[in-house]
Amino acid sequence: MTVTFYKNRFIESGENAVSIQDRAYNYGDGVYEMVRFYGGQGFCLEEHLERLEKSATAIRMKLPYSQEEMHKIVCSAAEKVGEETVDVYFQISRGEAPRLHPFPNTDSVLALFARPARSYTNEFRRSGVAVITLPDERWSNCYIKSLNLLPNVMAKQAAIDAGAFEAVFIRDGFVTEASVSNVFGFHDGIFLTHPANKGILNGITRRCVIKTIENLGYSWKEEAMDEVFFQKEVAAAFLTSTTMEIMPISKINDRDLGSVECDSPIMEVHKAMSGVRA
Amino acid sequence: MTVTFYKNRFIESGENAVSIQDRAYNYGDGVYEMVRFYGGQGFCLEEHLERLEKSATAIRMKLPYSQEEMHKIVCSAAEKVGEETVDVYFQISRGEAPRLHPFPNTDSVLALFARPARSYTNEFRRSGVAVITLPDERWSNCYIKSLNLLPNVMAKQAAIDAGAFEAVFIRDGFVTEASVSNVFGFHDGIFLTHPANKGILNGITRRCVIKTIENLGYSWKEEAMDEVFFQKEVAAAFLTSTTMEIMPISKINDRDLGSVECDSPIMEVHKAMSGVRA
Repeated sequence: MTVTFYKNRFIESGENAVSIQDRAYNYGDGVYEMVRFYGGQGFCLEEHLERLEKSATAIRMKLPYSQEEMHKIVCSAAEKVGEETVDVYFQISRGEAPRLHPFPNTDSVLALFARPARSYTNEFRRSGVAVITLPDERWSNCYIKSLNLLPNVMAKQAAIDAGAFEAVFIRDGFVTEASVSNVFGFHDGIFLTHPANKGILNGITRRCVIKTIENLGYSWKEEAMDEVFFQKEVAAAFLTSTTMEIMPISKINDRDLGSVECDSPIMEVHKAMSGVRA
Repeated sequence: MTVTFYKNRFIESGENAVSIQDRAYNYGDGVYEMVRFYGGQGFCLEEHLERLEKSATAIRMKLPYSQEEMHKIVCSAAEKVGEETVDVYFQISRGEAPRLHPFPNTDSVLALFARPARSYTNEFRRSGVAVITLPDERWSNCYIKSLNLLPNVMAKQAAIDAGAFEAVFIRDGFVTEASVSNVFGFHDGIFLTHPANKGILNGITRRCVIKTIENLGYSWKEEAMDEVFFQKEVAAAFLTSTTMEIMPISKINDRDLGSVECDSPIMEVHKAMSGVRA
């Protein structure tokens, strides 16, 4: 069951609520978040709401609700789905106005849906997933979680067409992140990931993984992996996102990394994080 | 009066027709065009429809209508507005589907509106407009007329906040184009504009201006102007777009270029093109 909220009320899932002159529809002029609920609890919901506010500030858009109000709406939507694990997606558009590029004098609008989560089994996780590398053709402000996602869509589809699961972006010879996830390497006992600058989206799960790595006593560095190291040398690698959680990489283009042992540091981080969620 | 078309029929302007899980609404996953009608004739309508098809092909999207069918719908919308000069905007979304990045198995959807054109007077045109320069932060495929327009929106608003009319993008030290228009320089008797490669949208008006320049016997080069030359030296410059037509630049950041003489080569090109339209 999908639960849908638009502007200021829950609506029927089939109801068309959006104008063809909505800023998100014409310009991708808006920002979004996706939160997973485990057993009724939104995982890092506060962090997601804070990041939504940061994204909105970056595009100079005022949110239609306070964080407290957003919190209530999001939790109430998750509850209505009535499943153990629920994904809640919400986006804020700059609103409806006659199409002209400058900011209109409108209120921004919330659109939200909540649905049963599509989780991956631990068997799937341990087998790992194949990734391909592609040039990072996105804009310069990937730290903003905006609705301009066409390059991500194209890259994800290219990965699938290549028989892979995800596309890892290379910019100026370095791994930035992937089409819908962050990327970590693990090499010589050290976890590596791209610094949280303008070039990547600072994932909530990414941050949580770093905290967990620290708690477990492993070393880590915010250091971008160069393309050749990533392709030819890195001992292990994985993706992180709200919906993937931690997803080991078993293949990078034509190089097999193999499946992941249950007691590997990567799965140890995964298990520690599952503990936090449960 | 605004005339609105969605999917397969004309709808009331106030009717909300779009799902909150439409690909254009969630991802900006679509392409668009804007055509101006003069006295019932769509200016370069065929070229716009061809470019729409090219943009769609570039994002691997099939259009819902043939060019002939699109032609009919667009002309019929313009006619319904019933004004001398009409702007018709149309966009194609990849359609409605549960939100997941890969291409869904859906038909793409046309959304269109037609409204009386917002034209500029020739007095306004001769006074010219101020522009500011900004870093080109857009993605690598600006030749695609996609719905991912957030960087353009931000730049246009920044221009307005600076008391200017348009923002001119600088990438790697060279002028590419502006937030909603192409950019030309005129120097030592030669018209200059950025080559029509992946870095710019090859404007229909841009192409028409080049043809007109040739017909009038002026020289022109597809050569990007470097930032310093554009800021400090270029004798004259102007913007082109469907809705601006030819718009002289009177100020580049803090440098005044002044207004444009009626008999300047730029206005000569403008007049020759107005002849084509009439």
